[in-house]
Amino acid sequence: MASTLALVSKTRCFKGEVRKYTHDSAATNGKMTFNIYLPDVALSNKERVPVLYYLSGLTCNEDNMITKGGALAYLSDERIALVTPDTSPRGAGISGEDDDWELGTGAGFYVDATEEPWKKNYNMYSYVQSELQQIVAESFAVDTSRTSIFGHSMGGHGALVLALRNPGYYKSVSAFAPICHPSTSNWGRKQFTAYLGSNESVWAAYDATELVKVYDGPALPVLVDQGDADQFYSSKQLQPSHLVIAAESSKRPVQLDSRMQPGYDHSYYFICTFMKDHIAFHARHLRM
Amino acid sequence: MASTLALVSKTRCFKGEVRKYTHDSAATNGKMTFNIYLPDVALSNKERVPVLYYLSGLTCNEDNMITKGGALAYLSDERIALVTPDTSPRGAGISGEDDDWELGTGAGFYVDATEEPWKKNYNMYSYVQSELQQIVAESFAVDTSRTSIFGHSMGGHGALVLALRNPGYYKSVSAFAPICHPSTSNWGRKQFTAYLGSNESVWAAYDATELVKVYDGPALPVLVDQGDADQFYSSKQLQPSHLVIAAESSKRPVQLDSRMQPGYDHSYYFICTFMKDHIAFHARHLRM
Repeated sequence: MASTLALVSKTRCFKGEVRKYTHDSAATNGKMTFNIYLPDVALSNKERVPVLYYLSGLTCNEDNMITKGGALAYLSDERIALVTPDTSPRGAGISGEDDDWELGTGAGFYVDATEEPWKKNYNMYSYVQSELQQIVAESFAVDTSRTSIFGHSMGGHGALVLALRNPGYYKSVSAFAPICHPSTSNWGRKQFTAYLGSNESVWAAYDATELVKVYDGPALPVLVDQGDADQFYSSKQLQPSHLVIAAESSKRPVQLDSRMQPGYDHSYYFICTFMKDHIAFHARHLRM
Repeated sequence: MASTLALVSKTRCFKGEVRKYTHDSAATNGKMTFNIYLPDVALSNKERVPVLYYLSGLTCNEDNMITKGGALAYLSDERIALVTPDTSPRGAGISGEDDDWELGTGAGFYVDATEEPWKKNYNMYSYVQSELQQIVAESFAVDTSRTSIFGHSMGGHGALVLALRNPGYYKSVSAFAPICHPSTSNWGRKQFTAYLGSNESVWAAYDATELVKVYDGPALPVLVDQGDADQFYSSKQLQPSHLVIAAESSKRPVQLDSRMQPGYDHSYYFICTFMKDHIAFHARHLRM
């Protein structure tokens, strides 16, 4: 049974409402916060609407996408709900959890940790894939048979991993500047070592490039946008070409459209520029 | 001559760039910061584009509108530049300047202060109307004969005042939840007393409702949106009905379209919802 939701705020925006909720989480053993945008037809229970999950990047929380992503105009028009979870547990009380912006608070990496001191709380994979989605299904007028997911950077990694590990569950997946091959970049190796341990064979379960090679499910539409002025692209933290090569060579039913966008960086200025394309992409697959 | 601009950052967004600049200001006797969004045709000097100024509200700075307003998509399509100044001097060194969110830092109120200790620095009217606009005219490919202005809350007040006091200069003016009659609301009386002194007869020069009654210039298109779930509307800080009554009774050439928007509050969730309408309104008058 889903835990009790506490409404923190609700604010009208376009033809719908942004609501913020907190709840006790069994997956992370603490309080979690998320936002949900509900179009009017869902608020009035006239229609069960498709639902889109968005996973944010390092240092972000549940608000970045909602306030800066520019998605709500399109979601309102398309009558799609949006759920934006936080990026990690907060205040878990783990020594050093707030000391490094790449690890701990704001850096959950959408894995289920197996190592101390993280394993009690840092279970963002199960939190997003199971607990949060159950809460949303039980609490709001959404049609869970029409669910898609997207994200940015660390959250792009998370979205790709969740979609590739749950064949048929998501109608489509997209990402802005995702970490594509975390087993081979510092963003990934550092966190996987801490959360999953040094046995690299278990990392593949959280690595989109590795998962693409073994994906065995219905055709999965994937859209990836990457700016070529992105400092983290230059420093090889993101590696979209690895994902492209894996998708092309493995001949799995992964329909990847990977686009390089000249001049754009890693920020929400990049994200909002291509938001319309991503919402249209998901809307097309959610309405099929 | 305009002071030297120092480029702080430039970031590609939609078909254009957001640039942040700092410069020494003669009007405020200190360093000021602003953002400018330039469409590609202006960046490449192919076209002098119309320019829109946006004045932010209490506690805000030059970034709120750029990151949360959702305007850049429309400005990119319309090929209009946007300039977002800060809301006050910062670090002027005035005792107590940072102690009260309604006065001092973040609360310049777009007046030229005549009272101590503010008068050396708190000259945001002259800064925006004269110094900043001269800098923009000299530094970028904008067509200053096609200039419009808008703002939010305190900045809505500022936009209305600048437009009403400079007949013919702005092609159009609009505001989200503006302070409409500051001589009669706490937001206004408090700041005018501090910046302009207790002689209320001088306040009328910075009061949109009073200025509408004596406006003597070419027809001025004005669009105002107000949410009816706005706590500052309920607490009578904004008073849009005063502006409507003044415009109707004075028979001046002020073409006011004042709209009440059910369910919306005072936040950027409200602003971004009606941003498309405001940009379209200005684009129509800037292109005439």
